[in-house]
Formats: sequence, C-alpha cells, structure tokens
Amino acid sequence: MGKSMDFSLYLVTDRGLIRDRALVSLVLEAVRGGVSAVQLREKSCPAGEFVQLAGNLKDRLAESNVPLIINDRVEVALAAGADGVHIGQEDIPYHQVRSMLGPNRIIGLSVNTYAQLMEADRTDVDYLSLSPVYSTKTKKDTKEPFGLEGLRKARSMTQKPLITIGGVNKQNLASIMATGMDGVALVSAICAADSPEDAARELADIIRNIKREQNHAVMQHQ
Amino acid sequence: MGKSMDFSLYLVTDRGLIRDRALVSLVLEAVRGGVSAVQLREKSCPAGEFVQLAGNLKDRLAESNVPLIINDRVEVALAAGADGVHIGQEDIPYHQVRSMLGPNRIIGLSVNTYAQLMEADRTDVDYLSLSPVYSTKTKKDTKEPFGLEGLRKARSMTQKPLITIGGVNKQNLASIMATGMDGVALVSAICAADSPEDAARELADIIRNIKREQNHAVMQHQ
Repeated sequence: MGKSMDFSLYLVTDRGLIRDRALVSLVLEAVRGGVSAVQLREKSCPAGEFVQLAGNLKDRLAESNVPLIINDRVEVALAAGADGVHIGQEDIPYHQVRSMLGPNRIIGLSVNTYAQLMEADRTDVDYLSLSPVYSTKTKKDTKEPFGLEGLRKARSMTQKPLITIGGVNKQNLASIMATGMDGVALVSAICAADSPEDAARELADIIRNIKREQNHAVMQHQ
Repeated sequence: MGKSMDFSLYLVTDRGLIRDRALVSLVLEAVRGGVSAVQLREKSCPAGEFVQLAGNLKDRLAESNVPLIINDRVEVALAAGADGVHIGQEDIPYHQVRSMLGPNRIIGLSVNTYAQLMEADRTDVDYLSLSPVYSTKTKKDTKEPFGLEGLRKARSMTQKPLITIGGVNKQNLASIMATGMDGVALVSAICAADSPEDAARELADIIRNIKREQNHAVMQHQ
C-alpha cells in the first residue's frame, strides 16, 4: 500500500447509522461505488471483536487496494494488520502513536483549530482532517466550524494532504473541494444511504469532475 | 519490576465507585494500606486521558515497587510505560497482545470456565484471574461463579499464579485464600470504602495471617 493514499472519498463508518445491514458488505458496496479510503470507527465494541471486524474488512479490501484506517485504537490496527490509525486531539499523542506504529503505517490526525493545524504541520503525520466544516449531528461535541473560508486558510498553511469532515453532502461537495482539499470524509451520506454504492458513485463523480477542472485550470496556467 | 509480582492484594479501579475523590490519590492510599498490585480499568475514558492518568499513576507508584497493570488497552500500557496488561476473553487474543508487549511485560488473563483455564495454561500468560468467585454487581455480565470448590479444582489444574475476583470481601477472604489462591482482586471493597487505606490494611492483614499459617503448615509437614 505504501503511503500514496487516495484521499478523494474517505468513508468513516458508524454502525449506529447502517440500520439492519452488515458493516463489511456495506463498506464493500461503497468501495465499488468509488470510496477510496476507509476508516473503521468503533467506540464501544470489545477489542477482540474490533480486531476480528478489522481483520475481516482488511482481507476483503485487499484486492481493491483501498487502505483501511482504524480510529483511535493503535493496538487494534497492529493486531489486524490495518494500514494506519486516525487519531483525534483527545487520543494518544501523535509521537507515541508513531513510535508504536513505525514509519510505514499511515497516521491521520483531526484538527479543530489553526493552532492545532500549525502544530501538526511540524510533525510527520501523514494527513490532517479538518473538522468540522459545518455543524453536524454525527459528532456530539460542538466545535467551531471551519467554513469554506476557513478551509482555504487552512490550505494555505500546510502542504500536507487535507481532508475535511462534518456536514459534507452532495450539495456542498463541489464548493468544499474547490477550496483545495485533497478529499472529503463522510459518515452519514454513505452509511445511512439506501444504496451506499449509488451514494458513493454520485459523490465520487462530483469529486472526479472537480479534480478534472482543477487540473485543466492548472494546465492552462502553465 | 521484572515479573516477580506479589499478587496478594490486587486492586482493580472503578471510577464509578470512588465518589468525589481523585483516583490517583485513592490508589496511593490503598497502596499504603497494603495493596500489592494495581489494575487501572477505564471503559469510556478517551485514550489520551487514559495515557495521562496511567503515566501519572505509574510515576507515583514507582517508589512503592507496586506494578501497574492496564485493563485491555495495550497501546495505553505501551504509551504510559505500564508494567503489563490484563485482558479478558473478549479482548485481543493473548498471542497478539504478547507480540505487541514483548516478553518482559506482565500479561494477565481472565478465565470464566475450566476450558478457558486449560487453554490459558498452555500459553506463557503470566497469571490468571478466575472470575467470578461469587455473583457480584460490579460486572454486568453474569457468568457461572466458581465457588470455593471451583477454586480448589482450578488450583489443581495449573501451576500459574491464580487470583480471583468477584464478590471478595473481608468476611469470605480467608476461605478464598485457603483454596490456594495467590491473591485476590478487589474493586468495591477498596474503591468504595470510606478509607481505602484502612480497608486495604484490614484485607492485607487477613491475607498475611493466612499465608503465615499456610507456610507454617508446610513447614510442619517437612
């Protein structure tokens, strides 16, 4: 897998939203639709079950080359052979996670303020997730949203891959991507969709079109 | 610390029981009273806070030579420099925990049945915790209690250090220790006590007396 990850359409799982459907097959449907990275987030699952679920998903994702990132639980990522870990500001400090995971696994970090962004920019963390863009009901905590202007400002502050999460949907996706994000992370727009595959495909198409236009504009400048 | 751990009076923490008291100072009081090992158990604390709490407790326990064991969270134990990890049957499988922790850290495993005990006996897990002895309200799950006869039977099945948890108190402590346990693990009898130090001292005295009598009996046989 290496670290050349495609951040375009980054799915974050939430079993609370998937209704009476199996998580692994739902994720695989979403990958068929165009999801390019998957973060498995489980807040209350026993560690043994989490490892099994992650290992199973990792096996099933193998042929798609889509990386599996584990939310928070470093030891679950190690035990399941996942590609990386995503941590938040309240999780284990980045440098400790890096020393446990080694140099080759991906580490992503959520940042909620510009100060956190600047601090993270000085580390070798692999990507940053700005959250939230907008207010959302998925996460209980209420942090000041970045907004589109905030995303542009953040983009100017770091060369690291940037994604953003929190209130992204197909209506606002184009304007979010236009701020220079490498991708967007979504929870409910895919997990709660009647067809996760169709939902992912529609979102992936929008992202592909935007990226094509951006590349075109860059080429015209050259 | 090495692996020569004194299992006599093994405190398992529960912040839900300590009322309006600070956890670290409560544990240190209990250690002054005679607690010989501490397991930090946190089921819903963010990982970063858990690491801080564990690191702080580890520092404060350093001079007492009392080992700090972390419940379940291998990465928290690694990040905080704790002495080991205690896992249950629903946590990450033992051999994976061992490969993450290396040979020198302590790993304890909860066993709820004789089959689990026999399986664990074939591994190099450092100690086993039989649970429960009696029915208890601390843990929500309801497993068949071992009872005193069950503890004696378990004792005959393994040479590994054995402790037991679940309904132990000062009234039944002597008869539990008489079955050949290396120690007992307690939650509420210490965490909920008005004076954790006095509670620990009273329990430690009972254990010391029993062990003295047992040694005496052994010497008379020789």
